[in-house]
Amino acid sequence: MTILIKGGTVVSSTGRTEADVLVDGERIVAVVAPGSDLAAGITADKVIDATGKYVIPGGIDAHTHMQLPFGGTEASDTFETGTIAAAWGGTTSIIDFAVQKTGERVEDGLSAWHEKARGNCAVDYGFHQIIGGVDEQSLKAMETLVDEGITSYKMFMAYPGVFYATDDQILRAMQKARELGLMTMMHAENGPVIDVLAEQLYNQGKTTPYFHGIARAWQMEEEATHRAIMLAHLTDAPLYVVHVSAKQAVEQLAAARDRGQNVFGETCPQYLYLSLEEQLGATGDPTWGDFEGAKWVCSTPLRSRAEGHQDAMWQGLRTNDLQMVSTDHCPFCMKDQKELGRGDFRAIPNGIGSIEHRMDLLYQGVVTGQISLERWVELTSTTPARMFGLYGKKGVIQPGADADIVVYDPNGHTSIGVGKTHHMAMDHSAWEGYEIDGHVDVVISRGSVVVSDGAFHGRAGHGQYLKRGLTQYLV
Amino acid sequence: MTILIKGGTVVSSTGRTEADVLVDGERIVAVVAPGSDLAAGITADKVIDATGKYVIPGGIDAHTHMQLPFGGTEASDTFETGTIAAAWGGTTSIIDFAVQKTGERVEDGLSAWHEKARGNCAVDYGFHQIIGGVDEQSLKAMETLVDEGITSYKMFMAYPGVFYATDDQILRAMQKARELGLMTMMHAENGPVIDVLAEQLYNQGKTTPYFHGIARAWQMEEEATHRAIMLAHLTDAPLYVVHVSAKQAVEQLAAARDRGQNVFGETCPQYLYLSLEEQLGATGDPTWGDFEGAKWVCSTPLRSRAEGHQDAMWQGLRTNDLQMVSTDHCPFCMKDQKELGRGDFRAIPNGIGSIEHRMDLLYQGVVTGQISLERWVELTSTTPARMFGLYGKKGVIQPGADADIVVYDPNGHTSIGVGKTHHMAMDHSAWEGYEIDGHVDVVISRGSVVVSDGAFHGRAGHGQYLKRGLTQYLV
Amino acid sequence: MTILIKGGTVVSSTGRTEADVLVDGERIVAVVAPGSDLAAGITADKVIDATGKYVIPGGIDAHTHMQLPFGGTEASDTFETGTIAAAWGGTTSIIDFAVQKTGERVEDGLSAWHEKARGNCAVDYGFHQIIGGVDEQSLKAMETLVDEGITSYKMFMAYPGVFYATDDQILRAMQKARELGLMTMMHAENGPVIDVLAEQLYNQGKTTPYFHGIARAWQMEEEATHRAIMLAHLTDAPLYVVHVSAKQAVEQLAAARDRGQNVFGETCPQYLYLSLEEQLGATGDPTWGDFEGAKWVCSTPLRSRAEGHQDAMWQGLRTNDLQMVSTDHCPFCMKDQKELGRGDFRAIPNGIGSIEHRMDLLYQGVVTGQISLERWVELTSTTPARMFGLYGKKGVIQPGADADIVVYDPNGHTSIGVGKTHHMAMDHSAWEGYEIDGHVDVVISRGSVVVSDGAFHGRAGHGQYLKRGLTQYLV
Amino acid sequence: MTILIKGGTVVSSTGRTEADVLVDGERIVAVVAPGSDLAAGITADKVIDATGKYVIPGGIDAHTHMQLPFGGTEASDTFETGTIAAAWGGTTSIIDFAVQKTGERVEDGLSAWHEKARGNCAVDYGFHQIIGGVDEQSLKAMETLVDEGITSYKMFMAYPGVFYATDDQILRAMQKARELGLMTMMHAENGPVIDVLAEQLYNQGKTTPYFHGIARAWQMEEEATHRAIMLAHLTDAPLYVVHVSAKQAVEQLAAARDRGQNVFGETCPQYLYLSLEEQLGATGDPTWGDFEGAKWVCSTPLRSRAEGHQDAMWQGLRTNDLQMVSTDHCPFCMKDQKELGRGDFRAIPNGIGSIEHRMDLLYQGVVTGQISLERWVELTSTTPARMFGLYGKKGVIQPGADADIVVYDPNGHTSIGVGKTHHMAMDHSAWEGYEIDGHVDVVISRGSVVVSDGAFHGRAGHGQYLKRGLTQYLV
Repeated sequence: MTILIKGGTVVSSTGRTEADVLVDGERIVAVVAPGSDLAAGITADKVIDATGKYVIPGGIDAHTHMQLPFGGTEASDTFETGTIAAAWGGTTSIIDFAVQKTGERVEDGLSAWHEKARGNCAVDYGFHQIIGGVDEQSLKAMETLVDEGITSYKMFMAYPGVFYATDDQILRAMQKARELGLMTMMHAENGPVIDVLAEQLYNQGKTTPYFHGIARAWQMEEEATHRAIMLAHLTDAPLYVVHVSAKQAVEQLAAARDRGQNVFGETCPQYLYLSLEEQLGATGDPTWGDFEGAKWVCSTPLRSRAEGHQDAMWQGLRTNDLQMVSTDHCPFCMKDQKELGRGDFRAIPNGIGSIEHRMDLLYQGVVTGQISLERWVELTSTTPARMFGLYGKKGVIQPGADADIVVYDPNGHTSIGVGKTHHMAMDHSAWEGYEIDGHVDVVISRGSVVVSDGAFHGRAGHGQYLKRGLTQYLV
Repeated sequence: MTILIKGGTVVSSTGRTEADVLVDGERIVAVVAPGSDLAAGITADKVIDATGKYVIPGGIDAHTHMQLPFGGTEASDTFETGTIAAAWGGTTSIIDFAVQKTGERVEDGLSAWHEKARGNCAVDYGFHQIIGGVDEQSLKAMETLVDEGITSYKMFMAYPGVFYATDDQILRAMQKARELGLMTMMHAENGPVIDVLAEQLYNQGKTTPYFHGIARAWQMEEEATHRAIMLAHLTDAPLYVVHVSAKQAVEQLAAARDRGQNVFGETCPQYLYLSLEEQLGATGDPTWGDFEGAKWVCSTPLRSRAEGHQDAMWQGLRTNDLQMVSTDHCPFCMKDQKELGRGDFRAIPNGIGSIEHRMDLLYQGVVTGQISLERWVELTSTTPARMFGLYGKKGVIQPGADADIVVYDPNGHTSIGVGKTHHMAMDHSAWEGYEIDGHVDVVISRGSVVVSDGAFHGRAGHGQYLKRGLTQYLV
Repeated sequence: MTILIKGGTVVSSTGRTEADVLVDGERIVAVVAPGSDLAAGITADKVIDATGKYVIPGGIDAHTHMQLPFGGTEASDTFETGTIAAAWGGTTSIIDFAVQKTGERVEDGLSAWHEKARGNCAVDYGFHQIIGGVDEQSLKAMETLVDEGITSYKMFMAYPGVFYATDDQILRAMQKARELGLMTMMHAENGPVIDVLAEQLYNQGKTTPYFHGIARAWQMEEEATHRAIMLAHLTDAPLYVVHVSAKQAVEQLAAARDRGQNVFGETCPQYLYLSLEEQLGATGDPTWGDFEGAKWVCSTPLRSRAEGHQDAMWQGLRTNDLQMVSTDHCPFCMKDQKELGRGDFRAIPNGIGSIEHRMDLLYQGVVTGQISLERWVELTSTTPARMFGLYGKKGVIQPGADADIVVYDPNGHTSIGVGKTHHMAMDHSAWEGYEIDGHVDVVISRGSVVVSDGAFHGRAGHGQYLKRGLTQYLV
Repeated sequence: MTILIKGGTVVSSTGRTEADVLVDGERIVAVVAPGSDLAAGITADKVIDATGKYVIPGGIDAHTHMQLPFGGTEASDTFETGTIAAAWGGTTSIIDFAVQKTGERVEDGLSAWHEKARGNCAVDYGFHQIIGGVDEQSLKAMETLVDEGITSYKMFMAYPGVFYATDDQILRAMQKARELGLMTMMHAENGPVIDVLAEQLYNQGKTTPYFHGIARAWQMEEEATHRAIMLAHLTDAPLYVVHVSAKQAVEQLAAARDRGQNVFGETCPQYLYLSLEEQLGATGDPTWGDFEGAKWVCSTPLRSRAEGHQDAMWQGLRTNDLQMVSTDHCPFCMKDQKELGRGDFRAIPNGIGSIEHRMDLLYQGVVTGQISLERWVELTSTTPARMFGLYGKKGVIQPGADADIVVYDPNGHTSIGVGKTHHMAMDHSAWEGYEIDGHVDVVISRGSVVVSDGAFHGRAGHGQYLKRGLTQYLV
């Protein structure tokens, strides 16, 4: 089966060009100048007319949590529902987190995740490994990860008793990662301090969702970010900080990068668009009874717009002090899930579902002039591929690459919200009412058209496991 | 005429892939996956076997001065000799500086440069415009530059009486450039202060080449860099600082970039490899009589290795606080030219010739681990193309692009020096004795093989004038 | 004549203590513990009861411009009226600026200033020397300044054609100052650029006082501050930047100080309390016809409160990145003076009169918690004395020091405004309506009570010329 | 008993003056101008001729550890021997650390320290409280400290299992300190990480004293310093970082201070003069068998001179990013004490004895131009007094102050070393061979001459406990 995408503007991270793209089977086999003799001779089983549209590499969401057990419940998207929603949104690869907690074996966690995902994904998927209990056993287990195609692992400076790693554990893990070439990913918040602050707020009767954000003070994100950077400096290990939301954390990353450290930062759509102020609700009273704000409870938290954090995230994306936008997709329904924390914000499952909207929300940043079209491709696909060892296969429109392609229509429109576009297994949307001046028209995953003409043509099971190589982004 | 480059590794600024490249006439028409059905069917008039070699976009040297009148003499390379040397070194485009001095008309300067270059270039060439006398007339003349394909212009904070622009002149020019979309290039050294320091040294009998570098103190490069940045901030104009050599200047650029300014910096091979210490000569006595150091007299000057400037330049290239490496190719012979400054370093014509060696010298940085292979391509070709409005046509291996292609052999070797590889019109080399672990094997310029098998096959006149678009590099 | 000040709290820059102060003639001869045998035996011609009050060293205003010719008129305070106002406000020493302009001789300027001041001052006075035309003659003249007791001189990076010094002139002057031990004071604004901006605004019909502040953009204060710092670095000369008003200028000073440079900054009460917003007037329309805003036209200008400059000044005072508060007292009446600029803000004489209120306005910062009581003394007296070579004689309550003493009542109150407290020769007050929770009760100048019981007891002619020593503040 | 110190130059933190100082009983009662009528009439029981000498406030060493149990042994100086050595060196007040460890009660630790010190000190002494186990009980106990005259307490980010406080414990303690006005002192090194590094080195056979410094990497001092600063920011508590030795830690302090935080840093003579290189010994082989380097094992460790840490400490003292010099006096003999760590650097008791030499070693910094004479007094006496609530009583030559006075002879000489000047209970000196161009001539403690004519005239028991007030140094 061959597909020819004709007449579109192929956009890469460095520029755009008019070119036809020929797909044969699962791969791109040629990029051809329109009007050339060669182009004239090409025939294909299927021709897609991309005139007036962008042809871009499929999105890569490098931070998702399908079916994640958290706070006594489980993230509401399965690998099936989540990856179908991804496909709808132009994301053709995800990297989810296999979980090992304190007291568990890495191998068991990884097996469990393979079990959950295998045969259920609509687009390709890979894994990072969470090392939630750093001990001799898990350090030993890290040695096999590269062979498994898992070239990155995450630790947490938060969530004591569940995922939390102490500084000496982080040291040992980073030393090991340095040896193996693994990328260290870090949830950089000082959890032990935050937990005390949260308890103090709760004890003062400050129990509504708003106080989630107050407890998780930016100082403790800046602090942990700097600490992780210094441990990375000491061990000469590269570091990737997940879900950066505080402008001061970006400043720490920028300072480290200015002195040449291989330190990277990811932010998420929620930190670009949403703010703590939303959680105050209509009354502006932080102790209000309304629980609406629970929709936006995530960690790191939404931060104050008045303090300028959102502007700083956009700026970080422009200055490349932040290199990527992932979703940290971790969906929970209000009913039976978020509601667990009514009366105690500490019990609200942390997470927002955005996998379906990342490409659109970022494209809106192109429309509003926050980023360039090329930077959009870089942030959502090319750099994720390079960062996590997928480049060449993913992240680029190029012969030999997997045919993961999105035809994006800059003249289309997308209305976000439940009942509008919403295929995630959630009873609400954190993005209700957002309007996008663009549209995902066609999505091709490894040579199969999975979305076109407003319909999903894919299937669970099409998605394959991605054995990833070492990061290709180091300087 | 079609050419097929087979079996090579195509390297872009973001990665590398095995692909065949088909050239038809002057353009690349397809990049094709080897082994695909399409590839099997392709025939070509000429097939170049690139097995085991890198296939990269031709180098773009965005800072050259052919036949530049300076200090009573003229740069020794003509557009012919200089572009032939460029071709030998894998550089297939140059951007030279058309000169307008105080008291002259911009149009006249530009015409003169067209005259010098037309019909004489072996590879494609474009122009930046030097505005050496900012007045009503030259400000008016700036308005026609974009139509002429000249989308960047340079001012000098040095050389009073020749090129020097005062701060209020810079302001007016930047305001105009902001309107027009022109990129402002800046020679950022505080010339009036440097000239006093130079005179004082001379009066103290400190007349040898070494004192050229002492007079041009790094403080006055940092100062002027910051001043230019603030004027750019005030006018919201993008800024490109040429030939950065002081680490403190890089720090100023980094600080501006961290806050989101469109500020860019170029360094040159001499600031990466050579140092003030060389000019001290064998005796280490700054007042020695030897004139050997004159070879390395350029502005900005070579700086002290002990102060760490060279390391800072490499680091700036890695952190993207410096985006490009150009040569500032400005060759003068020792005989009759550099010798004009025997006994008075102020009279030594400023300049080093490197156009032939830039690609090799930077590749050596890949060999020694200073930069990645992809970064080499980005620094020498992709970013120059984007920065100066050539991308798509130049700077990338992609259908529709000009067929400016270099086949680079990582297993080859290049010995630099007069009588070894040296086609520049100079009686010496600033790079004598440098050895490169790589080799420029084949050079294609707009579809013509101009270098192969150790021979030059091109011709003066093949090179065409490049009408450039606006910068494609802004955030 | 002896005076004993009993029962007060003597406040120094480092702390406070209960102590009696004995004055004999013009000097302090002893500081004595109350209740000691020695204290018991002391008698005096006059006893001042300072119970419940602060006994502080007399204020030193290191930046005044009495009778300064400017913009076709002359500052409205004579040395007599100005120093009487100073005395009223607890300031017992001033350092005024003798002026040499381009084309004039330093000696002549200095003589003229001696002439104006001699026999006319109510408190002691010294001079800085303005070098408004740096040439061989003025550089030579600098050599005699130290012997004249003038150990500091000022240059201007603004006011082309009047005071403006080019960078090479600044270099030469700083080199000379370094040799001689002179402190270089700098008006750090890029005048040539500001003048263009002002002209452009005027040509756009933006002619009201508000646009004075728009033209004098903070970028051009930051720029000039950095430039001055780099020239000071190059010459290893200490530097004192006058009337700092932009937070970015403070950041430049802080950065230089962090790396150990002898760089200092002064701010003025207007930059702590007043803002650009005031000049918008009631309508908030920048092009309004009202001329009220002319009261606050000074250079550097009042800056935007929304941008945080005022907060930054207070913070700089706390962090010692700013070391002193002077007034830049340069009074002009509205009538016949400020009015010269009706219809063209460029013609408004620049200056605000504050000499009478500096001690009070700063004390209000103690009341509001911006600075400590000790810091108040340090900023207004001790550091000015050390900075400009008066310490020991002035700036401290200590045996051997001149008896320049203020008894300040923290339970008193002062209402500022014309017809309330206002002895300056001005027909308005920039400070109308300010209320101070403290009061200058008694002022002693060189052993003479010049203010007490709400009356002025001094006389013009009492004040003596201060031959100053070299700065005592360098590290 | 009255003492008159005549003819000397009284030096304060801001300047110097010729003055006579009259002591009556334990206090200074007057400072008098020589030659005044009052001076002429003063008689005294004892007259000390200070002609040509400096009269300065007695030194305050705010960081000592007499009889500290550590690593299975005890610091070798008792309060008696240690305070006698202090007196010899011109130090008339010490602040020692009462110790509470994990599992102990604060009250018990404090009582024990009172027990050790009471009746045994030759000069006055106060206590900081170490809170080595932060729990409900110790947090409660903090509430009584102010009444006990203990207005500062120390926590450790190092020494897990002994003194180590976790971040959440630090948070709670700082919150409490903020309420009470206590100064938080911090040993800022990431102990858990350092302990792993030390173990790894040991396991690699790197067991000599040199590796103590390698294990305690500067990155972990910078890290902990930043972490402490952020916790202080979050709680709005002032912070005092003890024994700063890494230049990067100074940079963190400077950054926090630039933004207005009440953050302070102390360094020690060893970090100014000694370096890691010393511990390499004559052979320069880090694995050498010699144990000489154990003399200089302290924590934070001596750091590399090649990396510039010592220069950075001097600079920090000049820029006031470091405010004080204490000794961290913690003496251990080689025999039976330091020797415990032969074959395992981790078992070497940490500490250097310097109490006797601090004033001299810092004065040598005046001689070599590192600091001014006034800064010497400020660093060693005035600021310590202000920082720790003793000012007025200590730290200044002023009526009402305790008569703690040193007559220092700038024409004297002091040779440091065992058998030369060495009254500390140590069998070696870390400072052997240091020569000082000055000499402590006379030392007066609360009105008693304790050192003069090269003899000690004091006695154990003369020293009194200092109930301290709250810090007087905040902005």
